[in-house]
Amino acid sequence: METLIIRTGNHQSQVLLGESYKQVGKYLPEARVIAITDKNVHRYYKDFISQWPVIVIKPGEQNKTFETLGYIIDRLIRLNADRSTFILGIGGGIVCDITGFAASIYMRGLRFGFISTSLLSQVDASVGGKNGINFRGYKNMVGVFRQPDFVLCDHTLLKTLANHEFITGFAEVIKAAAIRDESFFSWMEANFKAALDQNSDVLQEMIYRSVKIKAEVVEQDEKERNLRRILNFGHTFGHALEKVTGISHGEAISVGMVMAAKLSEKTGTAPAGTALRLQQLLSGVGLPLLSPVPPDELAEAMARDKKKEKEQLFLVLLRRIGEAITMPMPYTELKQHLHDLR
Amino acid sequence: METLIIRTGNHQSQVLLGESYKQVGKYLPEARVIAITDKNVHRYYKDFISQWPVIVIKPGEQNKTFETLGYIIDRLIRLNADRSTFILGIGGGIVCDITGFAASIYMRGLRFGFISTSLLSQVDASVGGKNGINFRGYKNMVGVFRQPDFVLCDHTLLKTLANHEFITGFAEVIKAAAIRDESFFSWMEANFKAALDQNSDVLQEMIYRSVKIKAEVVEQDEKERNLRRILNFGHTFGHALEKVTGISHGEAISVGMVMAAKLSEKTGTAPAGTALRLQQLLSGVGLPLLSPVPPDELAEAMARDKKKEKEQLFLVLLRRIGEAITMPMPYTELKQHLHDLR
Repeated sequence: METLIIRTGNHQSQVLLGESYKQVGKYLPEARVIAITDKNVHRYYKDFISQWPVIVIKPGEQNKTFETLGYIIDRLIRLNADRSTFILGIGGGIVCDITGFAASIYMRGLRFGFISTSLLSQVDASVGGKNGINFRGYKNMVGVFRQPDFVLCDHTLLKTLANHEFITGFAEVIKAAAIRDESFFSWMEANFKAALDQNSDVLQEMIYRSVKIKAEVVEQDEKERNLRRILNFGHTFGHALEKVTGISHGEAISVGMVMAAKLSEKTGTAPAGTALRLQQLLSGVGLPLLSPVPPDELAEAMARDKKKEKEQLFLVLLRRIGEAITMPMPYTELKQHLHDLR
Repeated sequence: METLIIRTGNHQSQVLLGESYKQVGKYLPEARVIAITDKNVHRYYKDFISQWPVIVIKPGEQNKTFETLGYIIDRLIRLNADRSTFILGIGGGIVCDITGFAASIYMRGLRFGFISTSLLSQVDASVGGKNGINFRGYKNMVGVFRQPDFVLCDHTLLKTLANHEFITGFAEVIKAAAIRDESFFSWMEANFKAALDQNSDVLQEMIYRSVKIKAEVVEQDEKERNLRRILNFGHTFGHALEKVTGISHGEAISVGMVMAAKLSEKTGTAPAGTALRLQQLLSGVGLPLLSPVPPDELAEAMARDKKKEKEQLFLVLLRRIGEAITMPMPYTELKQHLHDLR
């Protein structure tokens, strides 16, 4: 078992890698605990979760809403949660996002931690202190930055994941390697099959290296003023794809990364062959490469992306596999490029 | 004109006292500005406000809700607010509370400032970084701590206040003096009539001294872990009264302070006569002294107060006029006292 510490401002957040979820009691404060989870996770781990009062929300991105937030707050009041209560989110990215947000605003902020049950949330969603909900279909339109006390990542929990959900988690792993660590990218090329087969050592190393990259970036720039933007590699395209098509986050990010890599080559920031290498790894894992959305429709959806500031977007491009840069690009210019990225 | 700086964490907030609201441009960043105000303020200052796109909400505590928050977020999206947009709240405590909260969670946080138009918000609500909304009738159940860039307090704006609203603002002024500054309390005893007559110099000094007390407390303890609790003098009783009776915040705090002062004498923390001196100033200003709610009903409402932790409440009591202390008190004990505080 390994522990990564993320220090931001005057807060310290622990990521517990390879720890058994049954050991979570070691990390809980001496306080009343209320659990928040979704129906799917609750079904699998009902006996374990029943040691705490629990709020069960509906699963899926379509329920990461203002209405579900209101439901959680209402339940917290009815359960007499007060400022000393500790909130434990148990689930994937959606549960962690909405739990972190609810805990951050209920009575102006309760302490909280996560047991992260999906690959996507173990390597990405639950680490870094971003939380929030969607609003009128716009992804993560409302939320705050606030670090959990701990994130417990137990890779044995991944066995109960649907295969499709497991695979989509690889998108954020490959993203972390692509933007920051060429040697990890090579390691993934050599080991992705073993990871797909749930080889325990390989999974644990893969998750550790992904989280380590994210932790380093978040420590340097918690509020996404600068460096942290690189974690959005593939996301400006990806969020728009998610919005238009309803495909999963991991699939959308996979396609978005391919588009961003092609754009990197087209604008001359990355050498030829960069996109191809990325595509090979993504398709090896079983992730999609091509956008099903016509360029103009995608452009329309991107115009409302959260990363847009004034009339330009901040795009994350690759300089090579293992190094990303951010580049402001006028919306009109991007729109022209979009036609050539298929 | 005087400026007070409030430093918390790595943020710096300016309180501009005696500055004309027409000079607000001097304090706005070079960014797109969106104003948020309520119907009453909008009616008086429409020409001034029309220089920005504006979101107009319904006035009154009953609209400080989750639904109004959703309305503001929806309007921000439709106005294409992005991360670089600056939000300017123009109004009293309710506008400032909900504006600060909406700005703090929209896209995980935009910059914001206030033009504070009521006495209550100039001396209290808009200073200190607490924001939020009510939920199912529970006061300020949902919110965050986040400081505005500036709060502009122009006492000439108070002329358009209804007399009743002006008077209720004195409750927080007297509170500030009672918990922290005996010489200011004496000054109020000598000057409250001139303040009620809107004598400009007296008003300006009164607001300055009130804000200075609050700023000192907030700087030492932004997140209300300890010292800041004293600012809740009168509020544990007061919030319950507001909830049960629907009387205004200032009136409820006035009654709540009298109850807390009587309790201070009863428990031996304050000398006899403390409550009487407080009552004389409050009634001189025209604020109520007596609870219209039966003790048991009040106890019921207090059981859900946000300051409750586990089975005890943190009460703020006086040691004397000018000095407050916090004291944990089991809920059952308080309930017994309540019958003797009328």
